[in-house]
Amino acid sequence: MRITIAGAGAMGSRFGLMLHRGGNEVTLVDGWLEHVTAIKEHGLQANFNGEEITAHLSVELQSNISSEEKTDLIILFTKAMQLDKMLQDIKPLIAEHTKVLCLLNGIGHEDIIEKYVSKNNIFIGNTMWTAGLEGPGKAKLFGNGSVELQNFIPGEEETAKKLADILSASGLNANYSDNIHYSIYRKACVNGTMNGLCTILDTNMAGLGATKPAHDMVVTIVKEFAAVAKHEDVNLDIDEVVEHVETCFDPETIGLHYPSMYQDLINNNRLTEIDYINGAVSRKGKKYQIATPYCDFLTQLVHSKEELLKAK
Amino acid sequence: MRITIAGAGAMGSRFGLMLHRGGNEVTLVDGWLEHVTAIKEHGLQANFNGEEITAHLSVELQSNISSEEKTDLIILFTKAMQLDKMLQDIKPLIAEHTKVLCLLNGIGHEDIIEKYVSKNNIFIGNTMWTAGLEGPGKAKLFGNGSVELQNFIPGEEETAKKLADILSASGLNANYSDNIHYSIYRKACVNGTMNGLCTILDTNMAGLGATKPAHDMVVTIVKEFAAVAKHEDVNLDIDEVVEHVETCFDPETIGLHYPSMYQDLINNNRLTEIDYINGAVSRKGKKYQIATPYCDFLTQLVHSKEELLKAK
Repeated sequence: MRITIAGAGAMGSRFGLMLHRGGNEVTLVDGWLEHVTAIKEHGLQANFNGEEITAHLSVELQSNISSEEKTDLIILFTKAMQLDKMLQDIKPLIAEHTKVLCLLNGIGHEDIIEKYVSKNNIFIGNTMWTAGLEGPGKAKLFGNGSVELQNFIPGEEETAKKLADILSASGLNANYSDNIHYSIYRKACVNGTMNGLCTILDTNMAGLGATKPAHDMVVTIVKEFAAVAKHEDVNLDIDEVVEHVETCFDPETIGLHYPSMYQDLINNNRLTEIDYINGAVSRKGKKYQIATPYCDFLTQLVHSKEELLKAK
Repeated sequence: MRITIAGAGAMGSRFGLMLHRGGNEVTLVDGWLEHVTAIKEHGLQANFNGEEITAHLSVELQSNISSEEKTDLIILFTKAMQLDKMLQDIKPLIAEHTKVLCLLNGIGHEDIIEKYVSKNNIFIGNTMWTAGLEGPGKAKLFGNGSVELQNFIPGEEETAKKLADILSASGLNANYSDNIHYSIYRKACVNGTMNGLCTILDTNMAGLGATKPAHDMVVTIVKEFAAVAKHEDVNLDIDEVVEHVETCFDPETIGLHYPSMYQDLINNNRLTEIDYINGAVSRKGKKYQIATPYCDFLTQLVHSKEELLKAK
């Protein structure tokens, strides 16, 4: 199967590598020149669960898509704010039969994808895999994970199940979900609390969790996500989600980790995905006339911090 | 007149010094041992508008009030969270005729003062003077300022005017106000925006003001203050107050200054007065059933930051 990974950062590299090893014809597409050049010259190098491997994958710079050969499946793995540009750039690869699977963090990406792809070809997913990049062309891929996915509009359940099978055949442990929006909102609650709060308070998740106000802040933010989700017929179990979110505080497991937004903004002075997490809840709240003041304020604070740090 | 300055930090030192030079019998009371000892041994030293002066004032450690001599006027100048303890400690100095003038930053101190002083003896004020401490026993006092004050309960207008005259006789430029709560809320709006936001975003006021979300954050917070004030029959002019607050952004005037809360928490790892600014609005909001989510969230963030920095 011809598969295009649109956005070949850490996670895109993992999926590309595993699907390539599973026998698919994979092309990575990315906007980072050094990364693309390194893969072209030396292949994608990875420490894959302790084993050093090199995979000679096809790779293209997204601003320079030369191929007109249509692809069968596009897996979207860009940063949220790069999604629209990516879809513009890879338009030549999209045929009438091309399926598009969105595995981005955050919520509300469908609005953008719909501009480029017919709804019956859109599939939405959520992944629990992790991945890291050590430099251009070098990935670090440890541990296990899973994928859940679902068709965007009714009637495409069988195709969704087939896509899950294709991913699973390469070890990606994918399952069809009949309620992907629940999983996406539940995961967004983790990002919507840990990311912004740790970034603004300059701490890791255990540090945040050890402060007295943390619990009330988490509860209030999760309630705002739940109120907006409910308007989309997704009924989050608030207590369960809060408990799930707060497992991140545990210093014995992942608590000492700094969330991705912290790494982006504080360590690397890069713009954040806040508009696709808390900011998306704010926009939806406005649309549905639901007050989301904590999401509004957190989004504003993170944007101010981006400006103060001259993030790009 | 026998005047006790309860809380002889920078501003208390200014008032004590000026009232002493104006011919009053002033005693400073404070909890900082090194400061009290320095003043006892060398007098209060000050650079007073460029002139180096030394004033031999009476001074006492608040935990060790030895005098049983009653005082005529107490001017309260503690940090907000130290007010209750101060009033407990200086109880021996309070007679039936003793007037108490509260010039603390923030709102809602009356609830505490009422526990120790009969309402007819309570006066509330607001000062635009500035002051700095360079070390124990050493003040730096530049520029001009003013004081507004009012009786806490009706019927004491004449006494309030007399108190203003006493302060003015020593150059403190005090005036009777018939709407002190307006001035206090207006000033609290400055502290309720600049203090918390600059502290959490780690920037000075010009830095904050240069970011796009700053204006909307200021407006939302001022509206919460105004909603609570309205419930107390104080009708803030929101546009005027926002404009007043935003003069702080000007780098040509005070914009490059870091607000006092920033200095307390970020520079000196000291606990902040947030509970008497945004936190007071939150508490009042809860009591009046008015939503104050920005004040709630900002208070929580500052408290988390206090814990993370192990502030004392």
